[in-house]
Amino acid sequence: MIERGRLITLEGGEGAGKSTLLEGLRAHLESHGVDPLLAREPGGTALGEQVRTILLDPAQRSMCAESELLLMFASRAQLVRETLEPALAAGRWVLCDRYVDASYAYQGGGRGQPVERIAALERWACAGLKPDLTLLLDLPVADGRARAAGRGEADRIEVEADGFFERVRTAYRARAVDEPHRFRVIDAGQPPEAVLRAAIAATAHLFGATA
Amino acid sequence: MIERGRLITLEGGEGAGKSTLLEGLRAHLESHGVDPLLAREPGGTALGEQVRTILLDPAQRSMCAESELLLMFASRAQLVRETLEPALAAGRWVLCDRYVDASYAYQGGGRGQPVERIAALERWACAGLKPDLTLLLDLPVADGRARAAGRGEADRIEVEADGFFERVRTAYRARAVDEPHRFRVIDAGQPPEAVLRAAIAATAHLFGATA
Repeated sequence: MIERGRLITLEGGEGAGKSTLLEGLRAHLESHGVDPLLAREPGGTALGEQVRTILLDPAQRSMCAESELLLMFASRAQLVRETLEPALAAGRWVLCDRYVDASYAYQGGGRGQPVERIAALERWACAGLKPDLTLLLDLPVADGRARAAGRGEADRIEVEADGFFERVRTAYRARAVDEPHRFRVIDAGQPPEAVLRAAIAATAHLFGATA
Repeated sequence: MIERGRLITLEGGEGAGKSTLLEGLRAHLESHGVDPLLAREPGGTALGEQVRTILLDPAQRSMCAESELLLMFASRAQLVRETLEPALAAGRWVLCDRYVDASYAYQGGGRGQPVERIAALERWACAGLKPDLTLLLDLPVADGRARAAGRGEADRIEVEADGFFERVRTAYRARAVDEPHRFRVIDAGQPPEAVLRAAIAATAHLFGATA
């Protein structure tokens, strides 16, 4: 009987340092003999990457909030079934750059899609898959945007106004309050090494625990 | 005050003759001074056409039924808001090659997605838009497939087995029984002229009626 892997998701707004943390966390896990699978949302499968292209395309300016929500869950449903579930069942750990909490934050908080609508989609599209741990990199919006500004052309979501990202942040923090056993909120304004230390501390209980 | 346009949807399995009927119906409406907008599903908008490419791509063989359903509604939500509602509100008639009934038939009947799930998506994704008339071109599966066989490479859905298309047909016919005031079932085994005559007769009540 293979012990089930662990699903760790990274969440946060633009410029919060998810990519840097992902790499640090991967190195940490590898040093403990764990070779994690890396995935991202939207994307992570052939289908998901095609959906990602549509979602981030600045030319899709007229995309309605309903379509955005449905596309996000189309990518997610495939990711869960094709990638996440088989990996976890085979005992592999997975580090995922965003997952379902991002829909509560971006499509819920940001776009105003009702929470009940998102929760109903989560129930059947995600096949009940919840992260074992969710690291929320929390940062004031202005700080994150300043960091993200140097990254080249903004995608369809990055061009949103500050109010949008304030609502995203508020919705993320509300999720963390609602599910404190699963979330760890990390102050992303700290130096990257301190962020990584906090993340590593948060993963400690996942080692050796029975799934 | 502009009188609202009419939404006529064409439904049916492969090879049922929807395209031929669409052209005949368009010519008929034009001869009565109505210049209908033509639309199709999946597709009909820039977003929808990109989603259509994913949905029909034979390389997406591993697409799960949940993602297929979500992609179909992502295309539809955009079509309703960007194309159908504005056209109808401006008094334009719309002929649409497939609409929400196709999800009950293909994703519901064909793929086994629960009817309640589709109905819940319809409630919020379609913004309450129901066709004024739905023409269901009904044909035994073997006859439709024989007709469609000569059309070149089959797409991701056309390669399904006969059992799939039998379930699609059954689900379509069940929809027609459930909403008889909106549906007109036409025997698509008749010559195209007879199919068109039946369709024209079915549209007669839409002229001059108050929306």
